[in-house]
Amino acid sequence: MKIEMLPREKVFRDPVHNYIPVRERVILDLINSPEMQRLRRIKQLGVANTVFQGAEHTRFTHSLGVYNIAREICDNFQQDYPTKTPGDGLWDDSERLVTLCAALLHDIGHGAYSHTFEHIFHTDHEAITRQILTDPSTTVNAILRGVSPEFPAQVASVIDHSYPNPQVVQMISSQIDADRMDYLLRDAYHTGTNYGLFDLTRILRVMRPYAGGIAFNPSGMHAVEDYIVSRFQMYQQIYFHPVSRGMEVVLTGILQRAKELYEDGKFTEDEKPRLLLPFFEGKFDLADYLALDDGVMTTYFHYWMKSTDHVLADMSARFLDRRPLKSAQFNHSTAHLLPAMAKIVDEAGFDSRYYTAKNSSYDLPYDQYDPTSATPKTQIEIMERDNTLEELSTLSPLVKAITGKVTGDERFYFPKVMLTSPDSPDFKPEYGKFQRYLAAGSVIDPAIYGK
Amino acid sequence: MKIEMLPREKVFRDPVHNYIPVRERVILDLINSPEMQRLRRIKQLGVANTVFQGAEHTRFTHSLGVYNIAREICDNFQQDYPTKTPGDGLWDDSERLVTLCAALLHDIGHGAYSHTFEHIFHTDHEAITRQILTDPSTTVNAILRGVSPEFPAQVASVIDHSYPNPQVVQMISSQIDADRMDYLLRDAYHTGTNYGLFDLTRILRVMRPYAGGIAFNPSGMHAVEDYIVSRFQMYQQIYFHPVSRGMEVVLTGILQRAKELYEDGKFTEDEKPRLLLPFFEGKFDLADYLALDDGVMTTYFHYWMKSTDHVLADMSARFLDRRPLKSAQFNHSTAHLLPAMAKIVDEAGFDSRYYTAKNSSYDLPYDQYDPTSATPKTQIEIMERDNTLEELSTLSPLVKAITGKVTGDERFYFPKVMLTSPDSPDFKPEYGKFQRYLAAGSVIDPAIYGK
Amino acid sequence: MKIEMLPREKVFRDPVHNYIPVRERVILDLINSPEMQRLRRIKQLGVANTVFQGAEHTRFTHSLGVYNIAREICDNFQQDYPTKTPGDGLWDDSERLVTLCAALLHDIGHGAYSHTFEHIFHTDHEAITRQILTDPSTTVNAILRGVSPEFPAQVASVIDHSYPNPQVVQMISSQIDADRMDYLLRDAYHTGTNYGLFDLTRILRVMRPYAGGIAFNPSGMHAVEDYIVSRFQMYQQIYFHPVSRGMEVVLTGILQRAKELYEDGKFTEDEKPRLLLPFFEGKFDLADYLALDDGVMTTYFHYWMKSTDHVLADMSARFLDRRPLKSAQFNHSTAHLLPAMAKIVDEAGFDSRYYTAKNSSYDLPYDQYDPTSATPKTQIEIMERDNTLEELSTLSPLVKAITGKVTGDERFYFPKVMLTSPDSPDFKPEYGKFQRYLAAGSVIDPAIYGK
Amino acid sequence: MKIEMLPREKVFRDPVHNYIPVRERVILDLINSPEMQRLRRIKQLGVANTVFQGAEHTRFTHSLGVYNIAREICDNFQQDYPTKTPGDGLWDDSERLVTLCAALLHDIGHGAYSHTFEHIFHTDHEAITRQILTDPSTTVNAILRGVSPEFPAQVASVIDHSYPNPQVVQMISSQIDADRMDYLLRDAYHTGTNYGLFDLTRILRVMRPYAGGIAFNPSGMHAVEDYIVSRFQMYQQIYFHPVSRGMEVVLTGILQRAKELYEDGKFTEDEKPRLLLPFFEGKFDLADYLALDDGVMTTYFHYWMKSTDHVLADMSARFLDRRPLKSAQFNHSTAHLLPAMAKIVDEAGFDSRYYTAKNSSYDLPYDQYDPTSATPKTQIEIMERDNTLEELSTLSPLVKAITGKVTGDERFYFPKVMLTSPDSPDFKPEYGKFQRYLAAGSVIDPAIYGK
Repeated sequence: MKIEMLPREKVFRDPVHNYIPVRERVILDLINSPEMQRLRRIKQLGVANTVFQGAEHTRFTHSLGVYNIAREICDNFQQDYPTKTPGDGLWDDSERLVTLCAALLHDIGHGAYSHTFEHIFHTDHEAITRQILTDPSTTVNAILRGVSPEFPAQVASVIDHSYPNPQVVQMISSQIDADRMDYLLRDAYHTGTNYGLFDLTRILRVMRPYAGGIAFNPSGMHAVEDYIVSRFQMYQQIYFHPVSRGMEVVLTGILQRAKELYEDGKFTEDEKPRLLLPFFEGKFDLADYLALDDGVMTTYFHYWMKSTDHVLADMSARFLDRRPLKSAQFNHSTAHLLPAMAKIVDEAGFDSRYYTAKNSSYDLPYDQYDPTSATPKTQIEIMERDNTLEELSTLSPLVKAITGKVTGDERFYFPKVMLTSPDSPDFKPEYGKFQRYLAAGSVIDPAIYGK
Repeated sequence: MKIEMLPREKVFRDPVHNYIPVRERVILDLINSPEMQRLRRIKQLGVANTVFQGAEHTRFTHSLGVYNIAREICDNFQQDYPTKTPGDGLWDDSERLVTLCAALLHDIGHGAYSHTFEHIFHTDHEAITRQILTDPSTTVNAILRGVSPEFPAQVASVIDHSYPNPQVVQMISSQIDADRMDYLLRDAYHTGTNYGLFDLTRILRVMRPYAGGIAFNPSGMHAVEDYIVSRFQMYQQIYFHPVSRGMEVVLTGILQRAKELYEDGKFTEDEKPRLLLPFFEGKFDLADYLALDDGVMTTYFHYWMKSTDHVLADMSARFLDRRPLKSAQFNHSTAHLLPAMAKIVDEAGFDSRYYTAKNSSYDLPYDQYDPTSATPKTQIEIMERDNTLEELSTLSPLVKAITGKVTGDERFYFPKVMLTSPDSPDFKPEYGKFQRYLAAGSVIDPAIYGK
Repeated sequence: MKIEMLPREKVFRDPVHNYIPVRERVILDLINSPEMQRLRRIKQLGVANTVFQGAEHTRFTHSLGVYNIAREICDNFQQDYPTKTPGDGLWDDSERLVTLCAALLHDIGHGAYSHTFEHIFHTDHEAITRQILTDPSTTVNAILRGVSPEFPAQVASVIDHSYPNPQVVQMISSQIDADRMDYLLRDAYHTGTNYGLFDLTRILRVMRPYAGGIAFNPSGMHAVEDYIVSRFQMYQQIYFHPVSRGMEVVLTGILQRAKELYEDGKFTEDEKPRLLLPFFEGKFDLADYLALDDGVMTTYFHYWMKSTDHVLADMSARFLDRRPLKSAQFNHSTAHLLPAMAKIVDEAGFDSRYYTAKNSSYDLPYDQYDPTSATPKTQIEIMERDNTLEELSTLSPLVKAITGKVTGDERFYFPKVMLTSPDSPDFKPEYGKFQRYLAAGSVIDPAIYGK
Repeated sequence: MKIEMLPREKVFRDPVHNYIPVRERVILDLINSPEMQRLRRIKQLGVANTVFQGAEHTRFTHSLGVYNIAREICDNFQQDYPTKTPGDGLWDDSERLVTLCAALLHDIGHGAYSHTFEHIFHTDHEAITRQILTDPSTTVNAILRGVSPEFPAQVASVIDHSYPNPQVVQMISSQIDADRMDYLLRDAYHTGTNYGLFDLTRILRVMRPYAGGIAFNPSGMHAVEDYIVSRFQMYQQIYFHPVSRGMEVVLTGILQRAKELYEDGKFTEDEKPRLLLPFFEGKFDLADYLALDDGVMTTYFHYWMKSTDHVLADMSARFLDRRPLKSAQFNHSTAHLLPAMAKIVDEAGFDSRYYTAKNSSYDLPYDQYDPTSATPKTQIEIMERDNTLEELSTLSPLVKAITGKVTGDERFYFPKVMLTSPDSPDFKPEYGKFQRYLAAGSVIDPAIYGK
């Protein structure tokens, strides 16, 4: 493996990490690759800027941030815990480069509005990440191959967790990894909230490698606790915000409708989304995928705003003009009412296939390792002075309170006009009928509450 | 004039101002208008994010910020300096709404990469701003008309400086106005630099209305001084950065080339930029203009990357992949060398009409009022306790140092490959010839310096 | 009641609140009173600066901060919830002044290193606060009397919770009051930690008066939750820090020993602490108390460093030179071992009456109202849109996790030399004997663990 | 020279630098020495907290901050510019320890309210610094001697500029040194102003050693410029504030009067300031000096508040209760009026020897090297790529504007009561007479302006 250093360190100015230094030429070349630059055109938080207006940052700056945190961890490990003999559980700095590359590239396969897009077009950003790394057609692959023929697959294996050294894997992907630490701080910075703040410097100082992966010195227990609490609060406050989800529902409606129109051969020439056609047709290649970004999507929404298909035109305008669907919470005991509500929405003139939706947002903020779980988590370990490990939630009552508990909610989405007040001149009887199913922001059974 | 207040104040979370409150329904409706929402898709600093990666914020958040500063000034004026008798030079709160609307809408006519776009397509964002405000086809106009039939024109007159009350005009547009104060703070926040920081709270506290406009209490002199110095430094450090300008030169090349290809009838069907055609044809209407945003531009660059025209394809890829042209400073004594340099660039295989450019960035950071100037500035006045006015630069040696002095530079742009080292296997003789014209980042005369 | 306004608002620059404005002359006069200025000489966090070096701020700046938060709450209440008819549960702005005065003066009776001092000399800062407010000898009393003859007692009654309006009382003293909100933010700022940060602006925006006191709008639930978690973390991380407590133990030893020497008539003339004598004699008046501050205490420690009494001299030097006692955690099952440990400390040459101590730090971070409790807490209420109240912990799993749970620990303190390593040339057998009682920072039973 | 490293890095939490790491045992021992701990009891900005209330930080935290900046510079130099051959002008890391010690100890000789105290008692904090380092009686000396017998003198020579390597000297003392960089940032943090902010990280990155000392890479020119401007603004805004100086005048009056009373044998037993007597007697030793701190001074002011000497009692109370003298600006053309003004102050019942004073505050924010100057400055050099040096002011118009220009003012101080309004019941004819000499905050000649 040959690692060329830059003649002079290069720095990127970053609002979260201040300066991000780069010393290896491979890293600089990767940053300058078309596949990475493309991430400048994909917002990190999708539609969340429609609620938290400052959230306009992209996956590009996040990716550099993750690289930077991983770099600091490697630097610290090499300074404080360098390996002496193979298998001693300390840090082997020959794994630095694969770590940094994986950190930088971990999101390279993300597309515009990934979650929604994948749902409709059955793409898979994880598979595409692997492809970008390993397919000889990409610049990223060429750069990685320059290190060694096996290097692209090695980097990919870190990202998909199959890399043998758990220290490297956990640095990139675990319950407290460079990815999450960067996005919490960055999303907090750009949304202007302070829920996501925690003491990154301290956490980095107390991380330490051991044979089983990464553990934390006891003096940093509270900083780790604070990180978990911050993460919990960011999900509650930012990532699960009902209004962003109302925008995502609109987006789903647009793509769903467009796909159907295409399949029915109803797109006019003027509506044809040239760069999306491979996806409508279900036969896209990597180059097609890499041509997509947020701007491509909204450009075609401009086209579709003028469609003769009313649903497509209206939904596209709603997205561009930021008019989210409204919502009410429901649960297992009220879910059976949703078909009746959707029917009223139909009666009011909105095709409920597009204008109503169920949307759930759930997260497991922290969990202990559970071998019986579908996706067992690598729990957070505090390493005591005698080198015994204690799982975080046994030490922190705050963390214990949220350990293993799924949080989130389920919401039913519908057009805002359904909430028109009976006092309004635009009121329709269907709206009144619909409103009988709602109280205090939740779906209720009108038969029981007799409104 | 009827002003409807919201039943409950609405707040927007903002990273710069924390919370931005809205109390008037007109303001909320304007924020929600399609013309304003469109600004979410136009970056405030154009291509500057390619240098300062955090600079991904849009004209939308800036516009709300300007509104918010103007709102605070109005609130302060009404609390501390309410008019008692007409013409007493104090604040008349009946001008609050026109002020707030002008603040919010002052950038509404901006387009994607405005500066470059206007240069090629001869659009004029100031004229379009007026049109958006006054043309009955827009939602903004409908909302403003709801206040009174004359209101749209009044708001427009604040923005074009013809409104009678200089207090209102200066709040939106002067050497220390809500617009500049917001963008300095916001650009500093997102670039992660602190050059743009100054004490906004203090400046707002010491502003005061008088018959001639807005003056400042002496206790705030140093805060105002600090603002001027910050502004100077932001121009030097951020706005004039040679690399951003190298991206703008690429952009100019793309649009120029595309326009020529269109005019020569050489666009294939696949290359046709549907939403840009009205501009190529020189006959666009307001709706055409309002359909443009950053994403529309880059979408067509994706199309053009695959053009059979090599210049268009290459320049488009340079833009998307962030490969700016490089530059060297020149001045009046070296400007005559540029044609020779351009010729060498041609010889090296790059059409110098697109691959070379002169680019100047100049700014006048602060000036006194000069009636003989082409654009006389409203100077900054400190109002002493005896109500006499003193112009800022007479009190501040720092401000005096930069008053009336144009700062900036002129640069000559060319492809980076021209700088290839003679040691490189890819070196060509033309590169060597070209490099004889360069020393220490500036253009020199090889005949004199004899390299 | 006559309230004179200042001709021009006066502002105090503050690192936490930026600008603190004062409009009422009474407030300005109180700030300028000798009793308030004295608080500039008393550190807010006592000895905590010996651990968190930036914690050098005083009770003076905190007091202005509490005033400022109370002022903002009053301003918000008056703007959004002004009373219309007596008894409507809304805000009556005629209570503004009593609120502001109580906020400003709530800590006026605090002395130097209050906690320890009170313990030894049986002073009571709450009683002294009342006395400073109501005794005609003080400047504070004269200023308050200028408002009305009853005003001093009214302000005092807010501070001791007997004031009739619960809105006023809760603003100054409750589980989420101006006092705590200021000290969490201020202590976080000066210690340089971010545990204490929460969204003050948001909390102030969602506070609202009701007949039973103060409640919070549901949109601020998460901000309130975040405040409770911050408070919990500050206690864990800052206020309970074992090293600060080790300095407090030293302080207790000094004062205890000095008192005994005085009572035994063993103070030489050179050691006599003129300003402390009234306290040694147990007959001090208010003027004596007001002459005490941090500097007075340490000045006499300088005297005592040269005492012929070895304990007094040594302990005084330990305090001035920052040499805290060390500690180990103990609990109910190991408490019985402490006498044996103290005995070994005696054998090693340290009088265990001064050189050992038990120290507990406990806090109840949040609790629901419990009428059977000794000190029932005013619980935090979220007011739903239908005006029903819900107690915070029923809505927040994080808060529920810490509700009603006392947190803290008990520690046994002893001289650091007892931990000398057996490898050291200065090792003594007593140290070894002592160390058998310790493992991993806790007291253990050597009979059981057989070390 | 033997340098023992700590088994594990120790960190100090600091609000300005976040974490300050210590790796050498010598540094930790010095921090823990009584002479350093004493600096915890001496405020960095003396009386400035009476104007900027947050400015309660001490010389101790500043000293650690200077150490930390010097440490970062050494780390950077060793990484980027390690010497290869003696005399190559690069960094020789064997000078790290002497640099760090000098940085940490540079202020060790400062006393309480140094400036005023030195003026009255003819102490010299620079001489005392040298003594603390080199006198065998101190703990600091013992620790330094532990490194090598010559080490104490070496550290002292860095502080007094006689150390041979200019890199080391300039790091601690030059126009842009660790000392100034820390105090600007720290004073800005604690006063809550942002004038003192500059980009420390960037400046540290562009510093580089050369044979003549320390230079800066051109890419950091603007950061250095920003530092100079910040420094200029902090002097104008904070350090020269007229009200702080009014407190210093009070302090001078107290000490002057007390000294005279002592010399006249008029101190009663109750007034005797035991720890100050050696200074009154003019024969103090190092131990006497080290027993002084802010608290000792104010303790004796408590004593003196009750003096039968009215001047001493009144001035002491003014200091403790924060009642500064007021002031007016004067200049060379009005200086001749001051005796007449002082005479009126005498007539009004205030002994003008104590109750009036002239006070000048001057600073030279930046200057070029001038061999003819009394104290030639080491100018700031930008090292171009070809290794030529350019002096900062030739590159920066902002710096040029303030280069070589002394800024500041001269003020005449007097009791506030002299400004009593003629409308007041407490008005006296002397006040009116006095006020004829004042206009708009300046001294004027009533004979000319004829008020």
